Amino acid sequence: MSLTLAQIAEAIAGQLIGEADYLIDSVGTLVHAKSHQLSFLANKKYKKFLFDSQAGAVIVAPGMGKDLNTNVIEATDPYVAYAKAAALLYPAPKTESEIHPTAWVDPSAKLAENVSIGPHVTVESEAVIEAGVRIDAGSVIERNVLIGEGTHIKANVTVCHEVQIGQRALIHPGVVLGADGFGIANDNGVWIKVPQVGRVLIGNDVEIGANTTIDRGAIEDTVIGNGVKLDNQIQIAHNVIIGDHTVIAGCVGIAGSTRVGKYCAIGGGVAIGGHLEIADGVQLTGMSMVTKSISEAGVFSSGMPVEPNKNWHRNVVRYRQMDKLFERVKLLEKQIKD
Amino acid sequence: MSLTLAQIAEAIAGQLIGEADYLIDSVGTLVHAKSHQLSFLANKKYKKFLFDSQAGAVIVAPGMGKDLNTNVIEATDPYVAYAKAAALLYPAPKTESEIHPTAWVDPSAKLAENVSIGPHVTVESEAVIEAGVRIDAGSVIERNVLIGEGTHIKANVTVCHEVQIGQRALIHPGVVLGADGFGIANDNGVWIKVPQVGRVLIGNDVEIGANTTIDRGAIEDTVIGNGVKLDNQIQIAHNVIIGDHTVIAGCVGIAGSTRVGKYCAIGGGVAIGGHLEIADGVQLTGMSMVTKSISEAGVFSSGMPVEPNKNWHRNVVRYRQMDKLFERVKLLEKQIKD
Amino acid sequence: MSLTLAQIAEAIAGQLIGEADYLIDSVGTLVHAKSHQLSFLANKKYKKFLFDSQAGAVIVAPGMGKDLNTNVIEATDPYVAYAKAAALLYPAPKTESEIHPTAWVDPSAKLAENVSIGPHVTVESEAVIEAGVRIDAGSVIERNVLIGEGTHIKANVTVCHEVQIGQRALIHPGVVLGADGFGIANDNGVWIKVPQVGRVLIGNDVEIGANTTIDRGAIEDTVIGNGVKLDNQIQIAHNVIIGDHTVIAGCVGIAGSTRVGKYCAIGGGVAIGGHLEIADGVQLTGMSMVTKSISEAGVFSSGMPVEPNKNWHRNVVRYRQMDKLFERVKLLEKQIKD
Repeated sequence: MSLTLAQIAEAIAGQLIGEADYLIDSVGTLVHAKSHQLSFLANKKYKKFLFDSQAGAVIVAPGMGKDLNTNVIEATDPYVAYAKAAALLYPAPKTESEIHPTAWVDPSAKLAENVSIGPHVTVESEAVIEAGVRIDAGSVIERNVLIGEGTHIKANVTVCHEVQIGQRALIHPGVVLGADGFGIANDNGVWIKVPQVGRVLIGNDVEIGANTTIDRGAIEDTVIGNGVKLDNQIQIAHNVIIGDHTVIAGCVGIAGSTRVGKYCAIGGGVAIGGHLEIADGVQLTGMSMVTKSISEAGVFSSGMPVEPNKNWHRNVVRYRQMDKLFERVKLLEKQIKD
Repeated sequence: MSLTLAQIAEAIAGQLIGEADYLIDSVGTLVHAKSHQLSFLANKKYKKFLFDSQAGAVIVAPGMGKDLNTNVIEATDPYVAYAKAAALLYPAPKTESEIHPTAWVDPSAKLAENVSIGPHVTVESEAVIEAGVRIDAGSVIERNVLIGEGTHIKANVTVCHEVQIGQRALIHPGVVLGADGFGIANDNGVWIKVPQVGRVLIGNDVEIGANTTIDRGAIEDTVIGNGVKLDNQIQIAHNVIIGDHTVIAGCVGIAGSTRVGKYCAIGGGVAIGGHLEIADGVQLTGMSMVTKSISEAGVFSSGMPVEPNKNWHRNVVRYRQMDKLFERVKLLEKQIKD
Repeated sequence: MSLTLAQIAEAIAGQLIGEADYLIDSVGTLVHAKSHQLSFLANKKYKKFLFDSQAGAVIVAPGMGKDLNTNVIEATDPYVAYAKAAALLYPAPKTESEIHPTAWVDPSAKLAENVSIGPHVTVESEAVIEAGVRIDAGSVIERNVLIGEGTHIKANVTVCHEVQIGQRALIHPGVVLGADGFGIANDNGVWIKVPQVGRVLIGNDVEIGANTTIDRGAIEDTVIGNGVKLDNQIQIAHNVIIGDHTVIAGCVGIAGSTRVGKYCAIGGGVAIGGHLEIADGVQLTGMSMVTKSISEAGVFSSGMPVEPNKNWHRNVVRYRQMDKLFERVKLLEKQIKD
C-alpha cells in the first residue's frame, strides 16, 4: 500500500522533516532500501549506514534528522514508530468471509457471520468462533473451543477441546494448544495416566510462534496472560501461569505448575523447573537453567559459553578437581598459619 | 459422570470413611474443590490445605483420614488412587465408529469394523487399523502402517510408512513418527543422503506428547518399549532403543543408536549423545548433558543454575582461569615444602 | 529392487571381489544381514563383526577385502559407497502424477504437468509448483510460494506465503517454513508486533528434518544455502543465513540475524545467539552455547557432562566459591612472598 510521508508521520506521531506528499510503498534496511521505501535507525550500531542510505525516508530519534540526504521522520522511539508504519504499509491481505467448501464445520458449532474458515479446516461440535476470526488451511478446532474476536489461527494448528483463546491473538502454524499435560503416577513400577481435565486459557493480544506447545491443566487451567508473546518451539507444561506482557524467545521449556510473572523477558533455550515462582520483571539470558524460585526483578544468567575444544576438555577436568583444590588451599592456609 | 463414594472406593481399592451414597461428579484441588468434587493429598506440601478443603471427599494415605471435616477414602498410594478415580469420572467421550465423509481411506487399507476416522484424515495403501482405534482430524497414516487395538491418534499426527504402533497407545497432536533419520555421508565436501530403510516400532500402552518426533532406523529399527511415556517436543533419533516403562520429560534430545534402559526417568531438556548405553533405572535431572555411557542405576546431573548476571560474568571468567589457579597452588605447595 | 553385484560395483565405482551375477535386494548391518543383503564397514569399532557376517556382500575400504568369507566390494569411502548403493536398492516409490481428488488447488496456482499433490493438500493462489514436485497429504502451500523441480514436501508441512524452495529439496513432516519472525517492539510496556515482511529462501539439495521451523525475515530474507542438511526440531530465527553444505543436528536454536558459514557442522542441542558471525568450517559439539562470533574454523565446545547427583551439588557450590578461592590464593602468595 502506498502512503504519503505526511500520512505516515501523523499515524506514528512523528515529526516530518521533508516532503509531505512523498510516496512510500514498502520498507527496507538502511543499506538496501530504495527511494520508494521507508527505513529506520534504532540501533546505534547501524548509524554508520545512515548517511549513505538511499531510503526514501528514515525514522530516527529526535534531533538526529539534521543534515541527512533524505526525508526524515523524528519519533521518540524509532523502532516502535517503524513497527506502526510497517503495519500500515503491509495491511493483512483481505480474506473473504467464507467457509471454504473443503472445510468441515460441525452443525452445532457457533460461527459469527464474518469469519474465514480455510481449506481442510475442521471445526468440531459446540465450538464458538467469534467475529472476524480467520482460521487457515488444515487447522483443527476441537469441541467446545472458544476463539475470540479478531484472532487469526494460521495453518495446521491444533486447538484441543475446551481451550479458550482471547481476542486478536495470532497463532502460528504447527502450534498445539491443550494437549494433555504429562501427568503420570507410578503404580507398582508401571506408569499409569493421570487424566488431564483442566483447560488452556489464553488472553487477548497474544502471539504464539510456530510449533509451540501449551498443555492443558491437570485439574485447574494453564493460563497465558494478556499481551504475552511467545516465539517458536516453546514447551509450556500443565498449570503454568504466564503473567501479562511477558515475552519468551524460542526453544524455552517451562515445567509444570510454575508461575512466571508479568513483564518478564526470557531468552532462547532457557529451562525453568516445575512448581517455581518467577517474580514480575525477571530477565533470563539465553540457555539459563532455573531450578529455584526467583523472588525479585533483575537479570539472571547461567551456562558456559564455548571455547576451543581442547580448553573445554581441560576445564571440565579442572572443574571436577575443584573440591580437592579447596582442600589443598585450606591445608596451605593452615601450614602458613602454623 | 456421577459416581457414589462407595463405587469410587471399591474401584480404587480404598477404605471409605464417610457416606457411601454421596455423589461425586468431578475432581478439584484441595483449595478449590467444591462439595460435588473429589480431591486428594499426595504431596505433604499441600497438607495445610487439607482441613479447610470444601471437597466432597478427599483421598489420603492410610491413617490420615481421621478428624477431617469431609468424606475420606484412604488408599495406599493416594496419587495412583486419584488417577484411577479420575479416569472413571472422566471417561473418554464416546466416538461413533465411523469413517468421516471428508476422510480419505485408500481402498487397500484394512480397517477393523469399529474404528473412528476423523475429518480430513488420510489413510494410505495397505495400512492396517485394528479394532477400537480412533484417528482424529487431519492425521496422516502412510502406507503399510500398523496401528494396534485401542490406540488413539490425536489430530494432525503424521505416521510415516511402515511404522508399527502397539495397543492402547495415545499419540498427541503434531507428533511425527518415522521421518527419516539424519543419515548423511560426506562425498568430497558435499553431503549426500544415506537412505533410511528401518522402521519405528512402538510398544503397548505408550503415550507420546505433542510435537515429539521419533525417526525411523537407518537399517534396523528404532524401538520404543512397552509402557514408555514421552512428554512434548522430544527428539528421538534413528536406531535409539528406549526400554520398557521409561519416562522422559519435555524437550529431551537423544542422538542416534543410543540405548536407554528400562525404568529410567529423564528430566526436561536433557541431551544424550549418540551410540551410548544408559543402564536400567538411571535418573537424569533436568538439562543434564550425557556424553558417555552410564553403566549403573542412580541419579545423575549436570548444568549450572542461574545466578545474578554480574556474578555469572565473573564466574565464567574465573572458570577460564582455573587451570592457572591450579598451577599457582602447585607452586605455593612447592614453596611451602621448600 | 534386485541388482547384481556387478551393477552395484559399477554404480559406486568400487572394485568387486566375488561373484558378478550375485543378486542383492536390500541392505543389512554386519551382524544381522542375510545372504541376499548388502552390508558395509565404515567404522573400525564394528570390524569385529566383519568375519562372521552372513551378508551376501560387504563394502570395505581398499585392501580390506582379503580373506573374507563373502563377496566384497572395495571402495575408497565405504560409507559414501554404501549410501549410493542403498539409494539404488531403495528407489523412491513411484507416485502417479496426479492431483488427488481431495486436494484443494487454487485456480491461479501454476502447476507443472508431472507433479503429485496428495490428499487434503492445499495449494493457494499464485503458487508455482515445478516439474516432478511431490507434495504429501495435509501439507499447506500458501500464496506465491515457489517450489523448485524435483522437491518432495512430506505430510503436514506448512510453507508460508512467498517462501521459495530450490530443487531436489526434501522437507519432512511438520516443518514450518516462513512463519513470522519474533519481532516485537516495546511501546510503553506493551509489546507490539513488528511486521515481518521478508521471505525464506532455500537453496538446492536441502533436507529439513521433522518439525523444524525457519522464520521469514523481518525486512530482508532468511537464507538457507545449497546442500544444507538440517535435522529435526531445529529453530532458525528471522534473517539467519546458513552457508552452503553446512549440517545441523537436532534441537539446535539459532537466534536472529546470525550468519553461519559454509561447511560448518553443528551438534545437537547447540544454541547460537543473535547477530553473530560463525566462520566457514566451524564445528560445534553438542549442547554448546555460543554468545560471541567465531572468526576461524576449528572445533568449539561448552557444557558440563553429567556426574552423580551428590558430586554435582557439591561442585555447583564450589563453583560459586571460586571467586573467593582466587582471593585466598592471592593472599597466600602475598604471605609467602613476605
